[in-house]
Amino acid sequence: MVSSMKKSLGAKTLVYPTPVFVVGTYDQAGKPNVMTAAWGGICCSQPPCVAVSLRKATYTHGNILARKAFTISIPSEDHVQQADYFGLVSGRSVDKFATTKLTPVRSELVDAPYVQEFVLIVECKLAHVIELGLHTQFVGEVMDVKAEESVMAKGGSLDITKVKPLVFAPDSQAYYGIGQFVGQAFSVGQGI
Amino acid sequence: MVSSMKKSLGAKTLVYPTPVFVVGTYDQAGKPNVMTAAWGGICCSQPPCVAVSLRKATYTHGNILARKAFTISIPSEDHVQQADYFGLVSGRSVDKFATTKLTPVRSELVDAPYVQEFVLIVECKLAHVIELGLHTQFVGEVMDVKAEESVMAKGGSLDITKVKPLVFAPDSQAYYGIGQFVGQAFSVGQGI
Repeated sequence: MVSSMKKSLGAKTLVYPTPVFVVGTYDQAGKPNVMTAAWGGICCSQPPCVAVSLRKATYTHGNILARKAFTISIPSEDHVQQADYFGLVSGRSVDKFATTKLTPVRSELVDAPYVQEFVLIVECKLAHVIELGLHTQFVGEVMDVKAEESVMAKGGSLDITKVKPLVFAPDSQAYYGIGQFVGQAFSVGQGI
Repeated sequence: MVSSMKKSLGAKTLVYPTPVFVVGTYDQAGKPNVMTAAWGGICCSQPPCVAVSLRKATYTHGNILARKAFTISIPSEDHVQQADYFGLVSGRSVDKFATTKLTPVRSELVDAPYVQEFVLIVECKLAHVIELGLHTQFVGEVMDVKAEESVMAKGGSLDITKVKPLVFAPDSQAYYGIGQFVGQAFSVGQGI
């Protein structure tokens, strides 16, 4: 066994990459709200599910429990300022759509709004609520994914370099873009 | 309300970014194994937890249940071939460390091995097992994060541009690198 030269950083929430999810919900009065979350990801293929973890103190936490639904709008690099803002203020006191001049669209499939101007959105029906500690994990079953045709490649699949999603780096608390193509999955490893 | 011009892609597992986690476990005989998974992410801050979802058919699934532990080794762009290979073959029939000439290191904190040559690793004790359908979600409590000093910035935080983690794009099944710095979180949105 080779001894490790690695340095301990402690028990912390640090993996790369983490996503930048803008979570859309309605409150009790029907006001659309959005908040930004980086603790989440896909968690099941069949049924297709995506997880997002939120603190109980957030306005969105109560909204999801009441409406049994949420959306995820994926911000592009162009919307980094709005995406960051959505994580800085609470929907309890601010109408974030109004302050950013972005447009809420009512999902036809779930009881939640998404961001019109964001190019990729995921509509979710609440499937599981898992208490983990400071955060509650909401598992949503994906009812549909929608995207602007402008970010699609030939053949109908999405082109990630046109979506230009943000990556959050937890340790330095910074947003990064997507870089270069590195390899094709289920293919590049066949050479071993 | 503005009508959406978005096109429906159907109910599928499609968000950006998704991570490339190399999950390390021991089998019943004590043989170290690794497999690659993209369905996962951080799911709680206190206690610090990370989730990874695996199909029941995988060798790693049984290993985690038996050992109550796993590690996540984050592959860099330099190791894309090995990371992809770890998702192509099963530890039931192959010793993946032997075939890739990578080095398993026994964690001193949890009953699982990690990949010596990968620059960032996370050691997890199994905390929750959640059946979601085709995939089982394993929530691990992070006991420690370790990194090579070569990927650290001044002050001890990690430099994501030195870690060079992979991003997986589910729709096109391709790996991408990390791109340019786009903005500082909890800061760039304050201008709104």
